[in-house]
Amino acid sequence: MTTQAAVYRGNKTFTVEHVTTPPPAKGEVQIDVAYCGICGTDLHIYLGHMDGRVGLERTIGHEMSGVIAAVGGGVTGLKPGQHIVVRPLDHCGDCPACRAGHEHICHKLKFIGIDSTGAFQQKWNVPAHTIHVLPDDLDLSHAALIEPLAVACHDVSRGKVQTGEDILVIGGGPIGMLVAMVARDAGANVTISEINENRLKYARGIGFNVMNPKELDVAKAIHDATGGKGADVVFEVSGTQPGVDLMTAAAATRGRIVMVAIHASKPTIDMFQFFWRELDLIGARVYRPEDYDAAMALLAKGVVDCDSFITDIQGLDDIQAAFETLTQNPNAMKSMIRMSEDVK
Amino acid sequence: MTTQAAVYRGNKTFTVEHVTTPPPAKGEVQIDVAYCGICGTDLHIYLGHMDGRVGLERTIGHEMSGVIAAVGGGVTGLKPGQHIVVRPLDHCGDCPACRAGHEHICHKLKFIGIDSTGAFQQKWNVPAHTIHVLPDDLDLSHAALIEPLAVACHDVSRGKVQTGEDILVIGGGPIGMLVAMVARDAGANVTISEINENRLKYARGIGFNVMNPKELDVAKAIHDATGGKGADVVFEVSGTQPGVDLMTAAAATRGRIVMVAIHASKPTIDMFQFFWRELDLIGARVYRPEDYDAAMALLAKGVVDCDSFITDIQGLDDIQAAFETLTQNPNAMKSMIRMSEDVK
Repeated sequence: MTTQAAVYRGNKTFTVEHVTTPPPAKGEVQIDVAYCGICGTDLHIYLGHMDGRVGLERTIGHEMSGVIAAVGGGVTGLKPGQHIVVRPLDHCGDCPACRAGHEHICHKLKFIGIDSTGAFQQKWNVPAHTIHVLPDDLDLSHAALIEPLAVACHDVSRGKVQTGEDILVIGGGPIGMLVAMVARDAGANVTISEINENRLKYARGIGFNVMNPKELDVAKAIHDATGGKGADVVFEVSGTQPGVDLMTAAAATRGRIVMVAIHASKPTIDMFQFFWRELDLIGARVYRPEDYDAAMALLAKGVVDCDSFITDIQGLDDIQAAFETLTQNPNAMKSMIRMSEDVK
Repeated sequence: MTTQAAVYRGNKTFTVEHVTTPPPAKGEVQIDVAYCGICGTDLHIYLGHMDGRVGLERTIGHEMSGVIAAVGGGVTGLKPGQHIVVRPLDHCGDCPACRAGHEHICHKLKFIGIDSTGAFQQKWNVPAHTIHVLPDDLDLSHAALIEPLAVACHDVSRGKVQTGEDILVIGGGPIGMLVAMVARDAGANVTISEINENRLKYARGIGFNVMNPKELDVAKAIHDATGGKGADVVFEVSGTQPGVDLMTAAAATRGRIVMVAIHASKPTIDMFQFFWRELDLIGARVYRPEDYDAAMALLAKGVVDCDSFITDIQGLDDIQAAFETLTQNPNAMKSMIRMSEDVK
C-alpha cells in the first residue's frame, strides 16, 4: 500500500508523490502523521538556501503531531494508537558534547526532517527514543505547536527567567512570540520589540507590552520603565544588527542575553558593555527532553492561544501553495499542513 | 608637614610635588603608601587617552600596599601600624546595581585613583570600607600585586573554573598571566596564547603550555589536544579582533568565555557559534571583597612568583622615567613605584 509524501525537488518546488514506507525497523516506530507546521527553516529549504545540506529528493518537516501506527522490534512502552509528537534529534552518543550530557547539541547531531526524512508525509518511521506520548485529549493540531514551544521553553530555561523579572523579547515572529508567552507564564513582565505592525497588533491583542524600534528608542524606554535598571533578561530573536545593538543597550547590569536567533553573518557587538556591566550572553539551540515535557504541560495549561496562533491549515495536496503563500505573508504566525483527514 | 605626591599634568607628564595631606576625615583612614604598581589603565592616562575623565591635576595609582598612619572618627577595627591594601571602589549604594548586590559595578562607581585621588603619593586618605588588612609577614612589594591578582580571581570566579578543565587564556600580559596562575591553582590545565616571544618565554618558564597564533592555528591545536572537545573556559584578555575570533573558535560546546579585555571599538563576533554550540559569554569587571580575600590567600600561598613577576621597582622621584620606560617595554610584567624608603 502506498501513501502520500511531499518531496522537496529544489527550485521552490514540492511534489506530492506516492511512496511505499517500509515497516518500522528494530528500534523504530511508524507514525500516521496528523499535522506538521511550517518552520522558518522549512522556508529556508524551500527558498533553496540549504540545498547542499538537504539535497533535492528529501521529505522535510519536523513540527508534527501524529498517532503511532506500528512499533518495531525491541521497542517497549509504546503501542499503536498512542498520540505522540517527535523530538526530531538524533545524536551520536560518542562525541565530547554527548559524553558531557549535551546530546541535544551533539557534534554530529542529525536533525530529523532536515538531515534525514521528515514529517510532510502520511507515514513516517522514526527512532523510538524521539517519541513523547501525548494526553489523548490534546488536539493534534495544537500538539503540532509543541516543537516550536519546546524551543521557547529551552530558551527561557537557558535564560533562568524568574518571577517578577523584566524581559525584553527582540523580534516578534513565531519563536519570539512563544518565548514571550513562556516567560510570561514564568511570572515575568514581558515587552516585545517588533517592527511589523500586524505582529505588534497580534502581540498587543494577547496582552503583551509592545514597542516598535522604528518609533521609539526601545533601550531608553526599557530603562525608563524599570527605574534605570534595564531588562533582566533579553531574548535576541531578530537575527539583525539592530537587534544585537539593542540587546546590549537594553540589558540590566548583570543582565542575561539569550541568543536565540541564527546570525549567518557576523554582527558587530558592543563587547565593552559585557565587561562594564558584567553581562552574560547565553546561546540556546533546540531543546532537551525536559523542554518537550514543559511544552506539553504549558500547551495543556492554555499558555498558547492556539486558535489565533495557527494562521491556517491546508491539506498535503496544497503544500506547494502553502509555502508560496507563507513566503508572501510576513504577518503569519504558524501555517500547518494536515497530512490526512483520517488521523485524529 | 608636607609629603610628596606625583601629579598627572597631561601631555605624558608627571610632576612630583610637595603636598599637605589633611588628617583623615570621619570614616576615613590615612595610609603611608609603601608601593604602587603601574596598571595598564595608568598607562592609558599617561598617554592622554583619559584626560576628559581624569583631568590634569590628579594623583593617580591604585595597585598599592601600605601601612595605616591614622584613623578618622567613627572608624572601628583598624589602627595605625596595620599593613593594608585598598580595594579602590566607591559605590553609591542606591542605584539598581547596588540594590541588587552588585556594588562593584555600581552605575555611579567611582574608581579611586582614576575618578578621585590615588596612591602615587606618600600619604593617602581613603574610605575605611576599602581597607583589607594584610598579615604582617607579607612583603609589601608583593602585596601591591593583590589588586591585579584580585582582578584575576574575579575573572576565574566568573568563569566557574573547575579542577581538570581545559583553559585557554588569550593574551599573556600581566592580567592574562595572573588569570593563568589562578586558574592553574584551581586545578585547571592552562594554555596561554600570546604573540610576544618574551612573554611566551616567561610563561613557558613558569610552567605554562604556550601557543603563538602567528605560528599555529591555536583553535585547531586546542581541539586536537582535547580530543575534539575544545577549551572549557576561554579568557579573552587581548582586546583584539583576532582574540575574539579565537575565543569562539577554541571554546568547547557549552564552553564559557570570560570577557576580561576592554574592547573600546566594537569587534565582529561569530554569534552563530553561540547559538550552535550554546556558548556562554560572561563579562567580568574589577572585583568583589571576596576576590581580595582570595588574592591575599593565593599570594601568601606562593601562587605568584613575585620576584620574577615584578619587573622593576623605582623611587617616586623617578615616576616619570618609569612610565616612559614602561611604554617602550612590551616585555614588562609589573613595574612598581616605591613611595618611601621608610614604610616597611
